[in-house]
Amino acid sequence: MSLVLDRNALETAIAVAPFHRWLGVSVREASDEGIVLELPHRPEFSADDDDPYTHGGVIGALIDICGDYAVAAQLGRDVPTIDMRVDYHRPSIGETLFAHGEVLKLGRLLAVAEARIYNEARKLIASGRGVYFVGET
Amino acid sequence: MSLVLDRNALETAIAVAPFHRWLGVSVREASDEGIVLELPHRPEFSADDDDPYTHGGVIGALIDICGDYAVAAQLGRDVPTIDMRVDYHRPSIGETLFAHGEVLKLGRLLAVAEARIYNEARKLIASGRGVYFVGET
Amino acid sequence: MSLVLDRNALETAIAVAPFHRWLGVSVREASDEGIVLELPHRPEFSADDDDPYTHGGVIGALIDICGDYAVAAQLGRDVPTIDMRVDYHRPSIGETLFAHGEVLKLGRLLAVAEARIYNEARKLIASGRGVYFVGET
Amino acid sequence: MSLVLDRNALETAIAVAPFHRWLGVSVREASDEGIVLELPHRPEFSADDDDPYTHGGVIGALIDICGDYAVAAQLGRDVPTIDMRVDYHRPSIGETLFAHGEVLKLGRLLAVAEARIYNEARKLIASGRGVYFVGET
Repeated sequence: MSLVLDRNALETAIAVAPFHRWLGVSVREASDEGIVLELPHRPEFSADDDDPYTHGGVIGALIDICGDYAVAAQLGRDVPTIDMRVDYHRPSIGETLFAHGEVLKLGRLLAVAEARIYNEARKLIASGRGVYFVGET
Repeated sequence: MSLVLDRNALETAIAVAPFHRWLGVSVREASDEGIVLELPHRPEFSADDDDPYTHGGVIGALIDICGDYAVAAQLGRDVPTIDMRVDYHRPSIGETLFAHGEVLKLGRLLAVAEARIYNEARKLIASGRGVYFVGET
Repeated sequence: MSLVLDRNALETAIAVAPFHRWLGVSVREASDEGIVLELPHRPEFSADDDDPYTHGGVIGALIDICGDYAVAAQLGRDVPTIDMRVDYHRPSIGETLFAHGEVLKLGRLLAVAEARIYNEARKLIASGRGVYFVGET
Repeated sequence: MSLVLDRNALETAIAVAPFHRWLGVSVREASDEGIVLELPHRPEFSADDDDPYTHGGVIGALIDICGDYAVAAQLGRDVPTIDMRVDYHRPSIGETLFAHGEVLKLGRLLAVAEARIYNEARKLIASGRGVYFVGET
């Protein structure tokens, strides 16, 4: 599959969303194989004042965004999410996260993309999938 | 099943997380049947500058939080999420969301809780589930 | 939502599939609130010769079928499954299972249905969801 | 991760289940990278007398089994499924299916495994995940 949006075009598309700007997501790589997003930590991501691991809701959002823009990179536009799932593998504390997204299937109506989230030490923090509607609406 | 944490105790437990405070989640109801959380809109939730529907990542986070504290209300403590899934049913634009959480199964090791998110007009916006680890770690 | 296929029409629709006939699924109830399917045990369902609990694959199939025909009862035809998820709550050994299906959302393009599986003692064995494509293809 | 059960030991473990024997699952490969299962078609798998594509319930069962034995190959025993999800990508008609299973995370309490199902032409038919309990019970 070939890339329609390159790194810069993806970066621009992602910045359209106030929620993405608040999170601070940026695009690190975009190629035919998939995309890599980067999310530096911010204090508001913490799930506990005393034990500041990153909240699962932030990680779930990153999975959704990463799957969506993996599809967008091939399709040229972002797409509405039908459903999303996350498996949490390890806690992450106060560190930058890297989300690797890959399109599993890009059909005429539906797309499925997978995302894996790693920390700076390349440990797998979470992984999941989104299903997206790519047909005409 | 009976309630261990009442509305006020849940409110206090939820406020421990910086991410919950940033979102602005509060507890509207807590009873033996389940809990209801309330999330007023904030501009940073939007998925698009020009078309300000609430981002799926915010909605996913609310599903996770609602399922978690539905379990916490019965167990007396919040619990780590194993996995989470969201189905998106309708867009929501700039309005307060209400998340209804219900425990489907509270076992010795695992709990499953379901959450449904409604808008002010009582339309179903999204729904989903979380699986939580409730055993000793 | 109102019923388009009644109990007998659903029974006929379900019997079109060789896999449903092999499983032995029948329709116990069909109303505006949802449907109830019945699945008597057969020895081939067992997951272990020595410990004959019903295989998760059989239970997953029943979730998919129940969600699909809950949609079909309202739409008048069965529909292709986009994705499906099952949570396993308790083992079931050698007993008839009852699957309660309910449509959560019937849209123009997509439907989401939920199913809960009970045993004869009315204990919750498993529950889950299917997402179905209901648009024109 | 290293293999504890080789191809023959996996084959023996899988054959313990009457449901696996009825399906006709066999082990084609088992290595440190994962496992490959093979499922020849049988007429009872069909979802329609006139349009004999393989039923989603059979495909879901294969995802569950493949994830489970990908874990078993590393752990030395099969494990109870906590939850399972399947995405259906393409219909498959009357052909042998190949399920590739890979362990994403093997923890002290939980394991997550992914499975992808291909047909004889190497087209991706379905993919999904299982979460398994691997702790002491």
